[in-house]
Amino acid sequence: MKNIVVRNIKRTDAGLVKRLGVLGVATAHEAYGRGGLMKPYMRPVWQGGEAAGTAVTVLTHPGDNWMIHVAVEQCKEGDILVVGCSADNTDGMFGDLLATSLMARGVKALVIDAGIRDAKSLREMGFPVWSKAISAKGTVKASLGAVNVPVVCAGINVNPGDAIIADDDGVVVIKRGDAADVVAKGEKRHADEEGKRKRLAAGELGLDMYDMREPLKKAGLTYIDESPEDQI
Amino acid sequence: MKNIVVRNIKRTDAGLVKRLGVLGVATAHEAYGRGGLMKPYMRPVWQGGEAAGTAVTVLTHPGDNWMIHVAVEQCKEGDILVVGCSADNTDGMFGDLLATSLMARGVKALVIDAGIRDAKSLREMGFPVWSKAISAKGTVKASLGAVNVPVVCAGINVNPGDAIIADDDGVVVIKRGDAADVVAKGEKRHADEEGKRKRLAAGELGLDMYDMREPLKKAGLTYIDESPEDQI
Amino acid sequence: MKNIVVRNIKRTDAGLVKRLGVLGVATAHEAYGRGGLMKPYMRPVWQGGEAAGTAVTVLTHPGDNWMIHVAVEQCKEGDILVVGCSADNTDGMFGDLLATSLMARGVKALVIDAGIRDAKSLREMGFPVWSKAISAKGTVKASLGAVNVPVVCAGINVNPGDAIIADDDGVVVIKRGDAADVVAKGEKRHADEEGKRKRLAAGELGLDMYDMREPLKKAGLTYIDESPEDQI
Amino acid sequence: MKNIVVRNIKRTDAGLVKRLGVLGVATAHEAYGRGGLMKPYMRPVWQGGEAAGTAVTVLTHPGDNWMIHVAVEQCKEGDILVVGCSADNTDGMFGDLLATSLMARGVKALVIDAGIRDAKSLREMGFPVWSKAISAKGTVKASLGAVNVPVVCAGINVNPGDAIIADDDGVVVIKRGDAADVVAKGEKRHADEEGKRKRLAAGELGLDMYDMREPLKKAGLTYIDESPEDQI
Amino acid sequence: MKNIVVRNIKRTDAGLVKRLGVLGVATAHEAYGRGGLMKPYMRPVWQGGEAAGTAVTVLTHPGDNWMIHVAVEQCKEGDILVVGCSADNTDGMFGDLLATSLMARGVKALVIDAGIRDAKSLREMGFPVWSKAISAKGTVKASLGAVNVPVVCAGINVNPGDAIIADDDGVVVIKRGDAADVVAKGEKRHADEEGKRKRLAAGELGLDMYDMREPLKKAGLTYIDESPEDQI
Amino acid sequence: MKNIVVRNIKRTDAGLVKRLGVLGVATAHEAYGRGGLMKPYMRPVWQGGEAAGTAVTVLTHPGDNWMIHVAVEQCKEGDILVVGCSADNTDGMFGDLLATSLMARGVKALVIDAGIRDAKSLREMGFPVWSKAISAKGTVKASLGAVNVPVVCAGINVNPGDAIIADDDGVVVIKRGDAADVVAKGEKRHADEEGKRKRLAAGELGLDMYDMREPLKKAGLTYIDESPEDQI
Repeated sequence: MKNIVVRNIKRTDAGLVKRLGVLGVATAHEAYGRGGLMKPYMRPVWQGGEAAGTAVTVLTHPGDNWMIHVAVEQCKEGDILVVGCSADNTDGMFGDLLATSLMARGVKALVIDAGIRDAKSLREMGFPVWSKAISAKGTVKASLGAVNVPVVCAGINVNPGDAIIADDDGVVVIKRGDAADVVAKGEKRHADEEGKRKRLAAGELGLDMYDMREPLKKAGLTYIDESPEDQI
Repeated sequence: MKNIVVRNIKRTDAGLVKRLGVLGVATAHEAYGRGGLMKPYMRPVWQGGEAAGTAVTVLTHPGDNWMIHVAVEQCKEGDILVVGCSADNTDGMFGDLLATSLMARGVKALVIDAGIRDAKSLREMGFPVWSKAISAKGTVKASLGAVNVPVVCAGINVNPGDAIIADDDGVVVIKRGDAADVVAKGEKRHADEEGKRKRLAAGELGLDMYDMREPLKKAGLTYIDESPEDQI
Repeated sequence: MKNIVVRNIKRTDAGLVKRLGVLGVATAHEAYGRGGLMKPYMRPVWQGGEAAGTAVTVLTHPGDNWMIHVAVEQCKEGDILVVGCSADNTDGMFGDLLATSLMARGVKALVIDAGIRDAKSLREMGFPVWSKAISAKGTVKASLGAVNVPVVCAGINVNPGDAIIADDDGVVVIKRGDAADVVAKGEKRHADEEGKRKRLAAGELGLDMYDMREPLKKAGLTYIDESPEDQI
Repeated sequence: MKNIVVRNIKRTDAGLVKRLGVLGVATAHEAYGRGGLMKPYMRPVWQGGEAAGTAVTVLTHPGDNWMIHVAVEQCKEGDILVVGCSADNTDGMFGDLLATSLMARGVKALVIDAGIRDAKSLREMGFPVWSKAISAKGTVKASLGAVNVPVVCAGINVNPGDAIIADDDGVVVIKRGDAADVVAKGEKRHADEEGKRKRLAAGELGLDMYDMREPLKKAGLTYIDESPEDQI
Repeated sequence: MKNIVVRNIKRTDAGLVKRLGVLGVATAHEAYGRGGLMKPYMRPVWQGGEAAGTAVTVLTHPGDNWMIHVAVEQCKEGDILVVGCSADNTDGMFGDLLATSLMARGVKALVIDAGIRDAKSLREMGFPVWSKAISAKGTVKASLGAVNVPVVCAGINVNPGDAIIADDDGVVVIKRGDAADVVAKGEKRHADEEGKRKRLAAGELGLDMYDMREPLKKAGLTYIDESPEDQI
Repeated sequence: MKNIVVRNIKRTDAGLVKRLGVLGVATAHEAYGRGGLMKPYMRPVWQGGEAAGTAVTVLTHPGDNWMIHVAVEQCKEGDILVVGCSADNTDGMFGDLLATSLMARGVKALVIDAGIRDAKSLREMGFPVWSKAISAKGTVKASLGAVNVPVVCAGINVNPGDAIIADDDGVVVIKRGDAADVVAKGEKRHADEEGKRKRLAAGELGLDMYDMREPLKKAGLTYIDESPEDQI
């Protein structure tokens, strides 16, 4: 690992990011060929928050948040700070002071594969955070990491400038070069879903709407009228 | 495992189910000899939801929700869909479209030993879900499982038609044949608790109310007035 | 382990406890040299609860809540009941009846390294609880433990009478003899933070406010303008 | 839960059990339609042990091994003791004295969804054990459970008399009524595998041997000669 | 937390420690009223190692092993180094160089609530280690902790000089002042077990040897001859 | 995600890979600036195995091993197969037949962020495997993934052709472009360690050898001769 800070990164187009945010995590993930989704242990600190932005990435070490302070300066309006850690750690690397600083720069959210603290203040400030843990554990400022290099966060490799979408369903990462394609596919999927929702609400079965009966029969599914004693 | 769908199942009496729902999870579980409780990793997707119904059971495989689509057709007014999985999995097997379909059929809730998605929509729709995880991870429709066979869900064997009670304390399963007995014992317990609550609120000690002082003394509990240096 | 109940414990001064509560968990933990924090799996049963009090300690065994009943009698106005368990356990050792009893005695909160139940009632009663799990699992009253002896709870050794502070960030334990010192340091820290918050909100960078640029450079951090192909 | 001990259970045919043991866990599980496998946290206490037998089932409570003592009397030559627990627990419910007793009765192994102790002695005695944990934690004898009722063990419902196969790959449960069918299918599978092993060892590809190239192409798999910059 | 090193600690009598080691972990834990046992995630790095010694304690921080280097100097012949960490961490804080240093001073073993590395070398050197994890993750030397203060290690409060017993069943801590009593009770228990083992090996049932039949009957256990359809 | 197989990948120089293998995981990881280490849940299926090779990467989905069969064809003498999965999964995606096929092609080892089976056979064949779990759970061949694209495996982004080193301490990934540098630094470190080992074995303290006394004093570490009552 080289201890560097990369100053000029290429960000995903802001218009595409906005449209990805409208799609939401589940639809963007599906439109991405079911890719880019962080592990489900990443949970919102407060329910109902939603964010879409471009990644400024940070690599930290367990119990050390020095590089997050370094990263703040690299953030611009519309960014989301994405923090990976070199080993599993739940210490509270981020709190309301850092959030104040990020909000002053127009940063949309924090996504961190470690712990955060000041949970109540973050909720009251309306600053959305997705983290692995909530923990008051204090950290030191002793070890260098890196800013704006590719980092693995919750199982996904994030490059600086990638689009990040987060809501109650988790966090999805769309590569800069794939954003336009995902927007196109996702918006089509979204439109299709509205029609399906109405049909299902009216009582139509997915079995019929998705034409599943034939493939299920072919695969060998059998319907029986009464349960045998030992059917499984 | 046989890949079957059982069409006609015997359901727990609806009146009994309703009364079990009034008792709630903790009281029903106690009245059942402290049995039938799913593991505590089963959590409500939104706080405050409550449900009581009869089980339609589904056996799925990791990352595959095909059988849930099959199961919808077998659900009736008053049912709760109970999904077991053949191996640990947190993928998002269920979302707002399936919930729409279940609500159209009068289904009360979903209990799933895997992940769900569209958490925000489910909350807004008021459809209660107890799950192991929230995850946007998409699933395929490739492997057959079974519907309305006994399935293990979060550590409990669930038979089709069993009564399912779920609230903020978790999920409890009462066998069809045991429901009347549990209702009787639970309602008695419930009545008793009201009196106890008043006495405790008035300052009476559980030690006295439950006559514990004598058995504690007999078991060897000793009271001392000052802490020794090394008492444990 | 001796099966004893210690009757007369020395409690942290109530005025100090109150001031610790105002500081909150994160600040008190920092002022304590980053000590005393319970593991982050200890979560509030309902969001937004806050409590500060003096520890009455209980040692229980898995699936057995007998000693909690014993401990109630030792609790006074301003106490927090702290329950350790001799092995990992998530059973529901505590519910609304015990909470009723504790509230009648002026107890501020429960901190338990095991499970609780009646989550909804506890929320409605406004009785704050920090626990490892929510589980309806019933317990027995069969094995003796101890009351008001030192117990390890979620990774921290708690002595009877220690100050306990709990909020959405977790639970911190301050030894009786250290409370005055922590209050002094914490209040100073708290005052300092207000000024920092304003400067950060105004756009000043932590890098400058904390004079980090020089030590970062000394440690070898390098800024580069464009990302190389393989920078990590 | 009723606190009963069932004396006369119907056991899977000993000849079938023996042949299932020869197949081993992975083959028996596959031949069973990929069913019956306990969760992978069930690990052998000592490497290389193998066992096949008929289940005598026990339901215990956390920290309490009373019912295991009761179950010993119900065990016969060729049985495997299968212990489920009413809640997650890792306490050491079983040690070398109980193993001595079981070996005296011709019992083949222990499968326990909890902890065991005396790990070294068990290894030296050659008594195979599959457990969730190794822990010296002592248990009490205070709560009744049941013997020879269906119990859920590590995610699988086990009926008394079911065939249990265990080796370094884990533990699989075959229902009594399904044993003959699984033996037939498993032995066929086993025979087939020998031929495949030779062909693969000689360098033939699974892609060809299993005729996968066509379905892969149909599903849309594309081969490219050089990696693009951003291929995923 | 004060950053101190305590030089002169009172150690448990060497003769008592030796006799505790002969008893082993399970027997010492039972003789200690089922107390003092560390959590079962503490596992031996190599199977079959056994150690008994007096605790030199260390408090470290996540990812930082500076204080272990400090602690080596405080170790004497017959000690066991016990390392607690201020937050959950699996980094490799200890390897073969530190083991070489400890062996040169006659230290018996390491017990660490974190990770270790050089697992193969430690095995070849015959230096026994009980840890939470094996991980090559390197650590820094940046934060002070303390040496020979009480530390919580894997759920147990350890005082400098306490007796530590470790084997394949885990790690137990006996307070200095309690060692003589535990030795006495443990040796009696040990003697009793030999007789029991012979009787059990001869086929006598624990039910009879421990006179359990009467209390079981009294508690309500019922024997039935044939399994009903729905007995649980 | 694009469903592609990349045929011609650039592999790390074989001579460098060999020298990295001699260094071992811990030294290579340190020489890499403490980078590249997979999470510690990756454990060897059999103790003592060691491997160094070049990565052929595979992306699979939960419960589906189709792409592993595809990947075999892309493996050459000296490769290590590295399998990532799009969501957490412990199913047994790999067994002795696939190992036979890989050995026939000169592949050195398997590294898989999922489960494997046939553990005993793999040990007997001497084919080294590092995995997240051992599980007999069978998998399907239904969903496409990709081969020789970057995959995240146990927290590390692995590019095709990267050097993989694995032993009892875990698995480390060295980027192709960094291998020469890591070899140089690692061999220097290795040489230094031999001298240190001798000095430590002779009783010299790390405190002196690493000149730690001054920085410790400066950081504020205090030595005291007798333990106060309440020192922490």
